[in-house]
Amino acid sequence: MTGKFIAIEGLEGAGKTTAINTVARILNQHDIGDLQFTREPGGTPIAEALRNIIKNGLDNEPLTDKAELLMLYAARIQLIDNVIKPALHAGKWVIGDRHDLSTQAYQGGGRQLDKVFMMTLKEQVLGDFKPDLTLYLDIDPESGLWRARSRGDLDRIEQQSLPFFKRVHQRYLELAKQDETIRVVDATKSIDNVAEQIEQILIDWLTKQVNI
Amino acid sequence: MTGKFIAIEGLEGAGKTTAINTVARILNQHDIGDLQFTREPGGTPIAEALRNIIKNGLDNEPLTDKAELLMLYAARIQLIDNVIKPALHAGKWVIGDRHDLSTQAYQGGGRQLDKVFMMTLKEQVLGDFKPDLTLYLDIDPESGLWRARSRGDLDRIEQQSLPFFKRVHQRYLELAKQDETIRVVDATKSIDNVAEQIEQILIDWLTKQVNI
Repeated sequence: MTGKFIAIEGLEGAGKTTAINTVARILNQHDIGDLQFTREPGGTPIAEALRNIIKNGLDNEPLTDKAELLMLYAARIQLIDNVIKPALHAGKWVIGDRHDLSTQAYQGGGRQLDKVFMMTLKEQVLGDFKPDLTLYLDIDPESGLWRARSRGDLDRIEQQSLPFFKRVHQRYLELAKQDETIRVVDATKSIDNVAEQIEQILIDWLTKQVNI
Repeated sequence: MTGKFIAIEGLEGAGKTTAINTVARILNQHDIGDLQFTREPGGTPIAEALRNIIKNGLDNEPLTDKAELLMLYAARIQLIDNVIKPALHAGKWVIGDRHDLSTQAYQGGGRQLDKVFMMTLKEQVLGDFKPDLTLYLDIDPESGLWRARSRGDLDRIEQQSLPFFKRVHQRYLELAKQDETIRVVDATKSIDNVAEQIEQILIDWLTKQVNI
């Protein structure tokens, strides 16, 4: 049996880290077996080197939107081929802090990159590989930004304007409607309530996947 | 007036460095003005960081063919937007040690990456930007490899097999036939003869471009 890949998605400040811990706790309670945690961009030496450039730039050189997109996909295919697929084949379950949906929302929605280009890249680089389940933590951009900014230093992406994050939010919602493997969590609720929502979605989904 | 972009192309060991010096000497003799030299992948801080990963890998992590291709285009658009186009707009002439033709030959021909993917990337990333003139130094793969290997340590690309370089060579020739801005130089001849061929091509081309 191969493992399953669960991605956690959402705007900055949506509560992804807490959600990842909740998912891990539930999977462990159900004795799923070994878990592998990933983050994107990143998760391999090459992908982390690319993440560092994407997040922090290099020597104040302007990073073009296209180069950012290409580097995100380079990092993603490195992670998929060298970490995610081997883990799944070894029967591990993978919990991802972001995956391709982030690129669709941030680079497609936020940066408004060409749709044909985005679609071709996704198809050619990822093929039919995708998460078995995505938990999208929905929060309005204003609250998310306020939470993220209260944490301190902001990276290149976090420094974008509110209209940028509104476009990202909009694209997240559009894509969630079109794909039944994406489940929306109301992340504006209390931590306990969010954990309950996640538990409900996950138990419901798990009963359809495996005998727990 | 804007400057012109001349790219020097060919297999390892074809004599690109000598050719670049020859082109620079001829342009200087004709008082073209300031020259800007570039190399690919590379030529900006971000592009050089990508070059280093492409040439040397990182922590022994396998670099997928797709990630290599995406990083090459990320490096290229950084160089074009941040160096080549500003130089051309400032009236400088740019002499490039490799450009997109290398990717078509090495990743398209050598690595046999999907043609639709290659074409979409080229179109979406580069648009209609291309060198005004490309000098392709033609040499048979066996001789080129022998010359390159006699220089010492080989990088990831230079370590490929002879059949790989034969495919690269084949693709270079095919593409040179289809594009009249690519001129073929017989690089198996003596250094003096190659310099003469380059001078002849360049003078012929220059007389059609500018009043010299």
